[in-house]
Amino acid sequence: MSIKKKKYSIKPEEEFQDLGFGVKVANQSERLINQDGSFNVERRGLPFFQSLSFYHSLLTISWWKFNLIIVISFLVINTSFASIYILLGIKNIEGITSKTFVGNFFDAIFFSSQTFTTVGYGAIHPVGFWTNIVASIESMFGLSGFAFATGLLYGRFSHPNAKILFSKNAIVAPYKDMYAFEFRIANARKNQLIDVEVQTILSLKEQIDGRIVKQFHELKLERTKVNFFALSWTIVHPIDKDSPLDGLHYKDLIDSDAEFLILLKAFDDTFSQLVHTRFSYKFNEVRWGARFKNIFVDDKPGITAIDLEKLSDLEILNSTVSGNN
Amino acid sequence: MSIKKKKYSIKPEEEFQDLGFGVKVANQSERLINQDGSFNVERRGLPFFQSLSFYHSLLTISWWKFNLIIVISFLVINTSFASIYILLGIKNIEGITSKTFVGNFFDAIFFSSQTFTTVGYGAIHPVGFWTNIVASIESMFGLSGFAFATGLLYGRFSHPNAKILFSKNAIVAPYKDMYAFEFRIANARKNQLIDVEVQTILSLKEQIDGRIVKQFHELKLERTKVNFFALSWTIVHPIDKDSPLDGLHYKDLIDSDAEFLILLKAFDDTFSQLVHTRFSYKFNEVRWGARFKNIFVDDKPGITAIDLEKLSDLEILNSTVSGNN
Amino acid sequence: MSIKKKKYSIKPEEEFQDLGFGVKVANQSERLINQDGSFNVERRGLPFFQSLSFYHSLLTISWWKFNLIIVISFLVINTSFASIYILLGIKNIEGITSKTFVGNFFDAIFFSSQTFTTVGYGAIHPVGFWTNIVASIESMFGLSGFAFATGLLYGRFSHPNAKILFSKNAIVAPYKDMYAFEFRIANARKNQLIDVEVQTILSLKEQIDGRIVKQFHELKLERTKVNFFALSWTIVHPIDKDSPLDGLHYKDLIDSDAEFLILLKAFDDTFSQLVHTRFSYKFNEVRWGARFKNIFVDDKPGITAIDLEKLSDLEILNSTVSGNN
Amino acid sequence: MSIKKKKYSIKPEEEFQDLGFGVKVANQSERLINQDGSFNVERRGLPFFQSLSFYHSLLTISWWKFNLIIVISFLVINTSFASIYILLGIKNIEGITSKTFVGNFFDAIFFSSQTFTTVGYGAIHPVGFWTNIVASIESMFGLSGFAFATGLLYGRFSHPNAKILFSKNAIVAPYKDMYAFEFRIANARKNQLIDVEVQTILSLKEQIDGRIVKQFHELKLERTKVNFFALSWTIVHPIDKDSPLDGLHYKDLIDSDAEFLILLKAFDDTFSQLVHTRFSYKFNEVRWGARFKNIFVDDKPGITAIDLEKLSDLEILNSTVSGNN
Repeated sequence: MSIKKKKYSIKPEEEFQDLGFGVKVANQSERLINQDGSFNVERRGLPFFQSLSFYHSLLTISWWKFNLIIVISFLVINTSFASIYILLGIKNIEGITSKTFVGNFFDAIFFSSQTFTTVGYGAIHPVGFWTNIVASIESMFGLSGFAFATGLLYGRFSHPNAKILFSKNAIVAPYKDMYAFEFRIANARKNQLIDVEVQTILSLKEQIDGRIVKQFHELKLERTKVNFFALSWTIVHPIDKDSPLDGLHYKDLIDSDAEFLILLKAFDDTFSQLVHTRFSYKFNEVRWGARFKNIFVDDKPGITAIDLEKLSDLEILNSTVSGNN
Repeated sequence: MSIKKKKYSIKPEEEFQDLGFGVKVANQSERLINQDGSFNVERRGLPFFQSLSFYHSLLTISWWKFNLIIVISFLVINTSFASIYILLGIKNIEGITSKTFVGNFFDAIFFSSQTFTTVGYGAIHPVGFWTNIVASIESMFGLSGFAFATGLLYGRFSHPNAKILFSKNAIVAPYKDMYAFEFRIANARKNQLIDVEVQTILSLKEQIDGRIVKQFHELKLERTKVNFFALSWTIVHPIDKDSPLDGLHYKDLIDSDAEFLILLKAFDDTFSQLVHTRFSYKFNEVRWGARFKNIFVDDKPGITAIDLEKLSDLEILNSTVSGNN
Repeated sequence: MSIKKKKYSIKPEEEFQDLGFGVKVANQSERLINQDGSFNVERRGLPFFQSLSFYHSLLTISWWKFNLIIVISFLVINTSFASIYILLGIKNIEGITSKTFVGNFFDAIFFSSQTFTTVGYGAIHPVGFWTNIVASIESMFGLSGFAFATGLLYGRFSHPNAKILFSKNAIVAPYKDMYAFEFRIANARKNQLIDVEVQTILSLKEQIDGRIVKQFHELKLERTKVNFFALSWTIVHPIDKDSPLDGLHYKDLIDSDAEFLILLKAFDDTFSQLVHTRFSYKFNEVRWGARFKNIFVDDKPGITAIDLEKLSDLEILNSTVSGNN
Repeated sequence: MSIKKKKYSIKPEEEFQDLGFGVKVANQSERLINQDGSFNVERRGLPFFQSLSFYHSLLTISWWKFNLIIVISFLVINTSFASIYILLGIKNIEGITSKTFVGNFFDAIFFSSQTFTTVGYGAIHPVGFWTNIVASIESMFGLSGFAFATGLLYGRFSHPNAKILFSKNAIVAPYKDMYAFEFRIANARKNQLIDVEVQTILSLKEQIDGRIVKQFHELKLERTKVNFFALSWTIVHPIDKDSPLDGLHYKDLIDSDAEFLILLKAFDDTFSQLVHTRFSYKFNEVRWGARFKNIFVDDKPGITAIDLEKLSDLEILNSTVSGNN
């Protein structure tokens, strides 16, 4: 063949994948990015066993849960091995003095724990063949378990845990001689973040060739990068005549199921690693005609201080912004 | 075949190393990049011992094999040390009660295992000089072994294991008012990949100064980067008049032993690391006049879902694209 | 003071956040970046418990303190568990020979230490139910503790500890046919730093719309990057007519509370990681009419040598630069 | 003051620090970059204790030396503690059966080793107060030591150990209708290197304002980057009329003490890390009128193979290149 000309007919699947999302239009309340930064999507057909989720969960759950899991694992393993020792016959462990079954079981647990942690006092020790085999397996298991715990502990500590606080609402506020779409962020961790870059994308449902598809528009920001991120940062998209928001009313945002997708990239100077965060504001999380209150605290000389609890504080303006301009 | 001749005199070795491949032309079926992303090349003269391959293999083999290797190593080490203890004389270990050789051997194994894991109950313990020395070495060996295992386990977990699924075939399909070379990819892991960049290079045998050499042409993509990679992505190279594919027939691709080399770079947000993948399509893995079927699943409200098993599904078009003009 | 007034109406909060600092103007002596590279700011409302500061402190304190903490922790844990064993009744530990309370307490400490380190000789071993339980907990605690220590030790060693020495003073010195703002840096570690980039920003208080706010001006450097950083590097900002320093007197710098903020980025070739450093010179740390003395040492043939102790050495010029016109 | 004009007078220290080297001119045989990639410079005044060199040495020495150090440390520590136990009185260790001093000393060593590795059989165990204290310290020391070894082992394995082979000589060879400066490199490790970038800088002694100073000139390369580095790569600097080498004779290179500095940057795909290498050719390591022999091996169908041992193989050309052109 030689390649033939064909009449223009847009293939939306390719056209709108700026963000790796498709163009499927589902029900109105759907959002693309959840408030925790995860994507509201589903990939089917993934292999059943995914070790990542297991390991990664152990890395990111709270210390409270992590320690609980360690303790419970230790108890379960101990009890399981103790049961095996009982099944193999308590007489194969020398040094057991209890006469009751319950006493024997606890002695088996103590023996198991002394084996698992390799403390091995020896006052109770295995004598039978299979008990020796199982004790040998358990001690190896124990060391492997703590090897695993070592890796996990290091992983938990060395994993950058950047957390950016986003103001609860984005706002549309007067800005210079026009209006601007704004939101405010702050660093919720003691980590030092530098070279912070923000990208804001507006997702709108639009009608193209009679089909309703999702369109993505990048919003031009007044400033896309700060060198330091020691305090808070108000990100500003001025709604000039080139803005996709120009001339849109609040009702238009509802109708086009608007969602403001925020991508944030920073270098975590504490962990020497690049970190990424995502967030989104749905149309109903944008307040029209409001302004962020001052976040600076002025009671301490010689230091610049902000109060993170004021991050989302808004001041309602008396102008008639919402609806139309 | 319609290979173009170029006039200027060049030194091919320098000219065609865009990709770090040479210009040697071997038999027709050769491919430069294997489907697992490795290069189909050989470097001789490398030093015999390369610790990397050993350690790196242990990092990347399946958990099933990894655990098997750990268990077998444990058994081999234990048996070896037990043999040494037997050779040194079983009487140098106190607490042995068996009278038979087999019984002694197993006792030696139990002693060895209690030493290797440092559980050291003490009911069996070394008394002879050399047995003490060997036991001392074994316990040190044991701790080193588990130090090694700790590193391996952490390495296995913290190593980004990005895996990109490529559609089984690339296609040449109608696109806008022309044709396009396309293939489709999806993330086969739960890892979050962002800032995904793709580069596609066409390798062709061409005749230059009477010599047949490999030429590399970058294919211009409609989009080379996506911010997110939450779903699937169809990469599109429009075959316009600047494309090296312009005017080529399927037979030309056969004659010039065409291979489409894919380089993919992404940031693994889960492991905070850059990952790279390679893939290639040989001419016979490209389907002409086909289109990728819809991968989206529409049965769940409020969420965008795809089915990875449909990634390679093609729809054959009724036009007469494939084969010849 | 000669602070210029600007006419247009702006919202200072957005306008001046180039560096992520606000515009609050506090007392004169305030500096934005401390000499150790930390920011002189405060963020309130952070959650009380921040594991980072704990772990990160353990990573960055001196070895002397680190080892002291390890030893004290070991002592405290041992003594605590010993107290519990005493409370549970010393008769529940078999092998105790002391008759006095103090003797018993030390025996409990020895038992505790043998349990915590999992050495478990067994000559002293638990017999009572609760003592067995506590000993089991302690041995698990011990292994966890050393798992933690392993991670910490690795973290301490693998964490890049780049340290840049900055000359005590910056200078304003004759340069070509004009003057230049200069400072000198050197690498205080044996780490190999490459691709070193410097950015210098001048912070000035200026009067805008009757409000006094902080303004940030980037200073154009003669060279912003060096490939190697094997020796010292004198960073030079020529004060040409585009420089924000052009026409300013020393008194102007005092009046506008000038601070020169230095941002430095480098690749640590030894640890294969990107490192960042910050520093600042306040107006009173800038010497006018001085020049850096030669830092090269010339007594060894075949090698280029510098002496870090000469980094801040200045030569006062006889011209009448400092003070006033 | 206001800044005054001054007659142009070059300050060489700032002018020529493109590479972070100074301009001091020492004896002829000096080179800036050693063949192992280290800098031939010295920084004095560094703090005496630099933990980096200790840890980093342990990371990069050969496995043979590393294991030797581990074994020797184990022996030294064991013997030292054994001596302490002897000093404290052998009677404070129960279970010692030897009657001679040498026998006691070896028993003390066995006890020490059982304590250090925490195997703690218990057949020999401490009874005296101070012996108990020291044993407690030793067991803690032992665990710390193996924690340290764990970190080291992981560090050794996870540290990218990229090694680039450079051809023994650089060449000046005919190239198209002119000449070119060339050298050839190959990857000496099994690691996969991608996105390899090369920068070549020529260092020359030149006379400026009557002073002899070092000048650095970047050499424009025909290609500065390859995507893959699966085989070998010949780096080519065409000596056109813009080249600093244009018109220079071999004798000129001698007179100006020429050194070709090579900086190489690559992404190690195996370890997911950026790696850097440096190399240099002095004027007497450049062969004029030679060409690199073919490195490809042609004896295996279906695979492209090179032989690393041919990397430096040269073919002397019959033309009269050296001397002048």
